[in-house]
Amino acid sequence: MAKNITPRSEDYSKWYLDVIAAGQLADYAPVKGCMVIRPTGYAIWERMQAVLDRMFKETGHVNAYFPVLIPESFIKREAQHIEGFSPELAVVTHAGGKELEEPLVVRPTSETVIGHMYAQWIQSYRDLPVLINQWCNIMRWELRTRLFLRTSEFLWQEGHTAHETAEEAQEETLRILELYRRFHEDYLAMPVIPGRKSESEKFPGAVRTYSIEAMMQDCKALQAGTSHNLGQNFAKAFDIQFLGRDNTRQLVHTTSWGSSTRMIGGLLMTHSDDDGLVLPPRIAPVQVVVVPLWQNDAEQAQVAPVAERVRAALAERLDPLRIKVDLRTDLRPAERFFSWVQQGVPLRVEVGPRDVKQGQVMLVRRDNRAKTPAPIERAGELAAQILETQQGELYQRALDFREAHSHRVDDYAEFKRIVEGEGGFVYAHWNGKPESEARIKEETKATIRCIPLDGAPEKGKCILTGEPSAQRVIFAQAY
Amino acid sequence: MAKNITPRSEDYSKWYLDVIAAGQLADYAPVKGCMVIRPTGYAIWERMQAVLDRMFKETGHVNAYFPVLIPESFIKREAQHIEGFSPELAVVTHAGGKELEEPLVVRPTSETVIGHMYAQWIQSYRDLPVLINQWCNIMRWELRTRLFLRTSEFLWQEGHTAHETAEEAQEETLRILELYRRFHEDYLAMPVIPGRKSESEKFPGAVRTYSIEAMMQDCKALQAGTSHNLGQNFAKAFDIQFLGRDNTRQLVHTTSWGSSTRMIGGLLMTHSDDDGLVLPPRIAPVQVVVVPLWQNDAEQAQVAPVAERVRAALAERLDPLRIKVDLRTDLRPAERFFSWVQQGVPLRVEVGPRDVKQGQVMLVRRDNRAKTPAPIERAGELAAQILETQQGELYQRALDFREAHSHRVDDYAEFKRIVEGEGGFVYAHWNGKPESEARIKEETKATIRCIPLDGAPEKGKCILTGEPSAQRVIFAQAY
Repeated sequence: MAKNITPRSEDYSKWYLDVIAAGQLADYAPVKGCMVIRPTGYAIWERMQAVLDRMFKETGHVNAYFPVLIPESFIKREAQHIEGFSPELAVVTHAGGKELEEPLVVRPTSETVIGHMYAQWIQSYRDLPVLINQWCNIMRWELRTRLFLRTSEFLWQEGHTAHETAEEAQEETLRILELYRRFHEDYLAMPVIPGRKSESEKFPGAVRTYSIEAMMQDCKALQAGTSHNLGQNFAKAFDIQFLGRDNTRQLVHTTSWGSSTRMIGGLLMTHSDDDGLVLPPRIAPVQVVVVPLWQNDAEQAQVAPVAERVRAALAERLDPLRIKVDLRTDLRPAERFFSWVQQGVPLRVEVGPRDVKQGQVMLVRRDNRAKTPAPIERAGELAAQILETQQGELYQRALDFREAHSHRVDDYAEFKRIVEGEGGFVYAHWNGKPESEARIKEETKATIRCIPLDGAPEKGKCILTGEPSAQRVIFAQAY
Repeated sequence: MAKNITPRSEDYSKWYLDVIAAGQLADYAPVKGCMVIRPTGYAIWERMQAVLDRMFKETGHVNAYFPVLIPESFIKREAQHIEGFSPELAVVTHAGGKELEEPLVVRPTSETVIGHMYAQWIQSYRDLPVLINQWCNIMRWELRTRLFLRTSEFLWQEGHTAHETAEEAQEETLRILELYRRFHEDYLAMPVIPGRKSESEKFPGAVRTYSIEAMMQDCKALQAGTSHNLGQNFAKAFDIQFLGRDNTRQLVHTTSWGSSTRMIGGLLMTHSDDDGLVLPPRIAPVQVVVVPLWQNDAEQAQVAPVAERVRAALAERLDPLRIKVDLRTDLRPAERFFSWVQQGVPLRVEVGPRDVKQGQVMLVRRDNRAKTPAPIERAGELAAQILETQQGELYQRALDFREAHSHRVDDYAEFKRIVEGEGGFVYAHWNGKPESEARIKEETKATIRCIPLDGAPEKGKCILTGEPSAQRVIFAQAY
């Protein structure tokens, strides 16, 4: 067991921070609530960016860059927007040695400044749709922070699209929600539930907000990506008009959607164990580490060429940049193994003198530590197979965990017992009223995570009031 | 001639802005001095990032992310650093609805906060070298701005490395300078002169600053990338110590180096013409556009399959994402052609009914408009060849231009006549004293761009004072 990591059973929050420290993923910065993303953590973000960016481009989106500073007056133009964000703003009041005439806020999100530009760029229906994404840093001043999950500064992508019709905007909103679901399930091996947010959990300024919700190992929910149909709210606030096909001036329909470095925290809490980070092979920056073992020149002469042969065989099947060879000589084998375990590398290939004599190497999975001896000439092929198997099994294990901690509940006493006890997702009826939602939150700390999109209509009675309800929603305590 | 672009001969500054507007590369943002990088401009930046990032990784560097806000006290720890940057700082004084105890500056560069973290991460010589790069936004408040070349916010990469010895730090500084040279010459087709900066042009806090200098079409110089040997200045200021091989505590030796979205401005001014943007094929986001031409169904039936065949042949040789097919029907052919000309797409493939009948398509280069008929079955192969030829010729043309406007001058009257007249690079002797440099700048607006690294020692007399000089340096007016 790792000496530098508190077991989950003992202190889950401490375990989370210990895994980050042991994997050298991130540190707190000297500015309160901000973080430094260290190379091992940033490499995960780069992988996430590469995959998501390709998915965005395949669906017709292009990238652009808008300024980090936004005039304070812009934020105020959309009433709900300023109400939602004003407590979290960081404000630049001085620049170039002078006090500014108008304070500038460090972007908490970019709907306003992008809306301002779209009003200039969009003239006619021929200019639509506009499908732009931005990769950038975001600032939302937070008092209680936790690395990756909630920090004053974080990195994200924010998509901002403008459409001719309400239908197209709604299609885009759901297209991206589905893209986020696919990314989480196929790459991060995180099962998620796509659904609609209740009115009180909506993005400030949105008509409808959708999210994907995942369950962490402590049975709490994590919102992992959101997609908003903004209707014509921002089009009105920033006067984004176009000349329609019928020759009348109309307001565009906009959407926005985002996913952030928070996903790294979710990924960690879905798969990692008491020895540290576990990464699914498709998102792991380093997929395989080859560890040659020798104690003298004679052994080195036997082992080194086999290690290189295995590396070359792996490089034919995998991206060569995602394979490492560990040639350190100042550490014992167990220490070398353990450093890769704590970085979450999915597969270790041990090449020792005894194995080599037997014409084989040892493949060791990170997640379940399973060891598979592989004939040298088949090592590349078997390693690639094991990575795929591991990817699928990580997903299935997380799905089984979620299902084992999901409950259909019709009684408020039982609801409270579960939510305040073992936790998990509780599928319960709700009368659709914000007051009931607020009271449940106050009494149990559980919020409505989402109204699942694939939930079948089912008549029932509100768990709190007994009033009629048309569908179960998911309650849970959340990050 | 383009109606939306002022000719260079008439107003070079206006030409520059017109080319940006016509190519939809960037706009001024609502915040003074900041810019919006539009999708066409951002795609160029993404290409630059992809190539540079690979070059950094191939030389052992990794990426990380440090916070955008830096405590004001950090900036003050290195005396020259605060002197250099204080007039340009943007300052956050309020956050989360309260006045901050200590103001935070929006990073003008990150030596200070990175130094603070390195002091925690580096303990022993075993932790060295640290080779980290960061891609991020930067804020330096500017009064006179020009899109891409000088804006209050810009995007860049900043490398920050720490080494055991002074020699290793110097090697790293020059390794990156050479990497920048290679990137500019091989990808941007921009000939550059690598050299050392004079004392007065050094980065605030550096021991030695190196840069690459390019010549623009108006004969002014543009600094296109800088690499600094910081010696132990920041190690002292942030107490970055390590336990050496000899078991004594020592200060690390650090370097920093950067290149920014300014390169897009330099690229534009090196190659573009009075019709708009010209992009070298290796950096162009779109390398080839296929433009099928038809006026009726019968022509479409002939032309469309050939256009698709040509696209497929191109996709075998080039990245399919860098090939476009223009199927617009609401514009005349000349308008369609011109829109791609103004976006700088290096090669246009026209597929018209008459050509198709003759079994050929027409390849049209962006830079010199040369038209080459190509048999349909050889179009992919010839297009790829033309792209490579064009890349080489753009570089050679820019090199010829620079050499035609470079002068060896030994007389101050002639020096003034050239610098204030036609401009260009003037290789002249200098006594090495800041006072002479300052007076020349005051009298002619020319600064020492660099002391060329490959300049042979040559005894001579300072152009201003007649005092002894050991090498010629390059003087020019600069952006």
